[in-house]
Amino acid sequence: MHTLTELKKYSAELVDLHHTLALMQWDQEVRMPRRAAEGRAGQFATLSALVHRREVAEELGALLAQAEAQQESLSVEDRALVRVMRRSYNQNTRLPEEFVAEFSRLTSQAQMAWLEAREQSDFAIFQPLLERLVVLSRQQAEYLGYAAHPYDALLDLYEEGLTTVQVESMFAELQAPLVAMVKKFAGRLAPLAFAEPFALAGQEQFAEHLLVAMGFDFSRGCLARSAHPFTTTLGHHDRRITNRYAPKSLDFIFGALHEGGHALYEQGIAEDLAHSHLDDGVSLGIHESQSRFWENVVGRSRPFWQRFYPELQQAFPAQFAHTELGDFVRGINAVTPGLIRVDADELTYNLHVLVRFEIEKALIEGSLEVAELPLVWREKYRQYLGVEVESDADGVLQDIHWAHGSFGYFPTYTIGNLASAQIWEAYKRYDADFSQTLADGNLVKVKEWLRKEIHGHGSVYLPQELLVRVTGAPLSARHFLAYLEEKFSTLVG
Amino acid sequence: MHTLTELKKYSAELVDLHHTLALMQWDQEVRMPRRAAEGRAGQFATLSALVHRREVAEELGALLAQAEAQQESLSVEDRALVRVMRRSYNQNTRLPEEFVAEFSRLTSQAQMAWLEAREQSDFAIFQPLLERLVVLSRQQAEYLGYAAHPYDALLDLYEEGLTTVQVESMFAELQAPLVAMVKKFAGRLAPLAFAEPFALAGQEQFAEHLLVAMGFDFSRGCLARSAHPFTTTLGHHDRRITNRYAPKSLDFIFGALHEGGHALYEQGIAEDLAHSHLDDGVSLGIHESQSRFWENVVGRSRPFWQRFYPELQQAFPAQFAHTELGDFVRGINAVTPGLIRVDADELTYNLHVLVRFEIEKALIEGSLEVAELPLVWREKYRQYLGVEVESDADGVLQDIHWAHGSFGYFPTYTIGNLASAQIWEAYKRYDADFSQTLADGNLVKVKEWLRKEIHGHGSVYLPQELLVRVTGAPLSARHFLAYLEEKFSTLVG
Repeated sequence: MHTLTELKKYSAELVDLHHTLALMQWDQEVRMPRRAAEGRAGQFATLSALVHRREVAEELGALLAQAEAQQESLSVEDRALVRVMRRSYNQNTRLPEEFVAEFSRLTSQAQMAWLEAREQSDFAIFQPLLERLVVLSRQQAEYLGYAAHPYDALLDLYEEGLTTVQVESMFAELQAPLVAMVKKFAGRLAPLAFAEPFALAGQEQFAEHLLVAMGFDFSRGCLARSAHPFTTTLGHHDRRITNRYAPKSLDFIFGALHEGGHALYEQGIAEDLAHSHLDDGVSLGIHESQSRFWENVVGRSRPFWQRFYPELQQAFPAQFAHTELGDFVRGINAVTPGLIRVDADELTYNLHVLVRFEIEKALIEGSLEVAELPLVWREKYRQYLGVEVESDADGVLQDIHWAHGSFGYFPTYTIGNLASAQIWEAYKRYDADFSQTLADGNLVKVKEWLRKEIHGHGSVYLPQELLVRVTGAPLSARHFLAYLEEKFSTLVG
Repeated sequence: MHTLTELKKYSAELVDLHHTLALMQWDQEVRMPRRAAEGRAGQFATLSALVHRREVAEELGALLAQAEAQQESLSVEDRALVRVMRRSYNQNTRLPEEFVAEFSRLTSQAQMAWLEAREQSDFAIFQPLLERLVVLSRQQAEYLGYAAHPYDALLDLYEEGLTTVQVESMFAELQAPLVAMVKKFAGRLAPLAFAEPFALAGQEQFAEHLLVAMGFDFSRGCLARSAHPFTTTLGHHDRRITNRYAPKSLDFIFGALHEGGHALYEQGIAEDLAHSHLDDGVSLGIHESQSRFWENVVGRSRPFWQRFYPELQQAFPAQFAHTELGDFVRGINAVTPGLIRVDADELTYNLHVLVRFEIEKALIEGSLEVAELPLVWREKYRQYLGVEVESDADGVLQDIHWAHGSFGYFPTYTIGNLASAQIWEAYKRYDADFSQTLADGNLVKVKEWLRKEIHGHGSVYLPQELLVRVTGAPLSARHFLAYLEEKFSTLVG
């Protein structure tokens, strides 16, 4: 058989199996009965082991080598397929099986320890496991290989080609202007507060309404409830999201817009790429650029709410009948330096990420001990955000990422934020009437442009390459800073 | 490693994978977006192929042979495990791969043709595919092997050890008394009719309420909606059911009791048998005995409704405020010979099965041509049920079973009905106050007895062996006929 045909068949099989694993996780979050957890973990391990065997098979290595020898004669898409499959093959084969097993055992224990540590707000419970995880993560970097800094190997896991130097220069550009803007705008916009709870069914209905308006295709996806919102792909025509509904929070709106942004990316991938390793968002950073685009750039803008606020008022008169549009838009953009990353506003969010990046880099290069974390965390929060961390639960223990063994993940959040503003600038060049487009609720026009420029390409282009194609320039903090300055100056008036 | 330890590990892996396949089907029925169907079919095929490879591996054959050589020294449970795994291994290895592939292709086509044929009420659309399926099913019987009649091989697929002769003698005992009883009781009990629709949420709530009363454990299962109710197992602690809700039908009650009966069986299997081939109901017939027990023997009895009818009246006053208990119980037991098996009452139901059994047996032995089916169907319905079949859609095309390639399945419905009455007699010997037990709503007492006698054993005993253990006698129509005679005589008064 022709090498590429065989490789595509192999790709399709692995993609099928990964979508099956994704289904197991989806069900676990949205439907699985309580006592089934242990059994499901066993089923997941059984299938994962079968999939892993297929992923590290010499047969696949040989196919990839053959395809690479024919590189020159391949189409852009086929070359990309070889690239993506090679990357995954290397990641899978460079880590010895015993290492993977140990890592997996350790992260299971670490998650339990982290839960307990957070509950008791006692870092000491988590510390020995985190120490072990840092050692293993350094080892992981050695196995995977890197050119300049061991942390590069970990960054690359989440954002192909990203380096420590790049992240450093990104934050160097961001830090001082952000800290200055936080000083300037903090406390100048009044936050919203609700005396009356929002009916849960009404929240879900409104979330659905927004998703339909964005162009989320319910014949190729669905919306369910889970403890933490997420987006997942179970097939080319099966991209699902979850949301959560609390009685007195607007999370139902921004959760739906955020996950909707991820899902539009997934639903927009070209049909030709279906059933292959290219049928996926290209990186976490680019993915986050799409969720942040809808959640923040669009979803916290005044024009967007010109269209949707009257409907929100109608859906929840007890909460909004006496709040004017301007106050609402100011309220959802209130700037308040705080302790918790996931509750952060657009201005302070990336400072939370900066703290984590500096700590991760230092841990991996060995210039910081795990035991020092709580103290370092407090210092950095004081320095960058001007807040006092009172407890580890609201400090160094707030995120699950490290317990998952995920070092190098956090910077993709900032990449997403920066890219969302840079992409918005490109959109504005395409659509000079952008404010009117949003005020008309013509979100599908925006979606179609994103689809043509970004979504459709799946994983064909490298993340940094894609951004240059769409915006004409490599990733820079400039656009994001300009976007913030203009937005908050206008809001403060 | 010890042979049995290795065999149990193998069993656990296969069970995990089958539960994963079951999850894919569950999701397909209850949640999957419309356009994902084709992709899901591909994923299912990919995983099925992987599972199949493990199921026919020589390694497994060798393990089974080793275990069989040690039979004498094994416990009852371990011997049963070897038996069940051998049975499945033989079924999987006796059919050549090309045959399985052809069968699977043909059933896919046949299901589409059947849908269209039924929609247009035109048997000719389905006929060529059914002809081919009959040929393949005969071939299947030859591959599987049988002692007396090729149909035996197919019956055994659904009910281990069941033979054509046994089914014939079962119907010989049933037919004349049933036809006589239908004549005697048809039209003597007034059916219920509803002017007002039942609110769907209220139906679901009442269904849940009954399931809780029966002892269905919601921490080890859940209830969802689907087009056709079913029960499925996704893990030892994960037994799920679905139900459907129509505006003017009581199906929500009897669907919940029926599926609840299946699910109690599954939930009741002993923890020792978890994660093995024994962690399953032993046969379709015994499974159906459990669903019919709750749906009919318990769920259409007067004592049961003494307890639950006031609640039903309270939940749906518009429908029941002016209907007395006696009229309600008579209404849900009305005897009306009809065309559709799934709508049939307890008296006529098995005559529908008889028609199908006679046709299947004749098709498989070659004494009947597929082309003659519509005519033969009409004749048999006239003869056994006294009704005129006006269209193929309401006649020979009403069931999907043949399009699935399932010949030999229908008789298990009748086995279930007969066994449910026979088991009820045994229960009455255990609990002389059975009427009071039901009238008190003490359904858990009934469930616990079933669990001890039947559910707990999973697949350890052969179906016929199990029935003798529970009731003291092999399956006989006698108990069922006595149950019907007593019940309907009392109802007619």
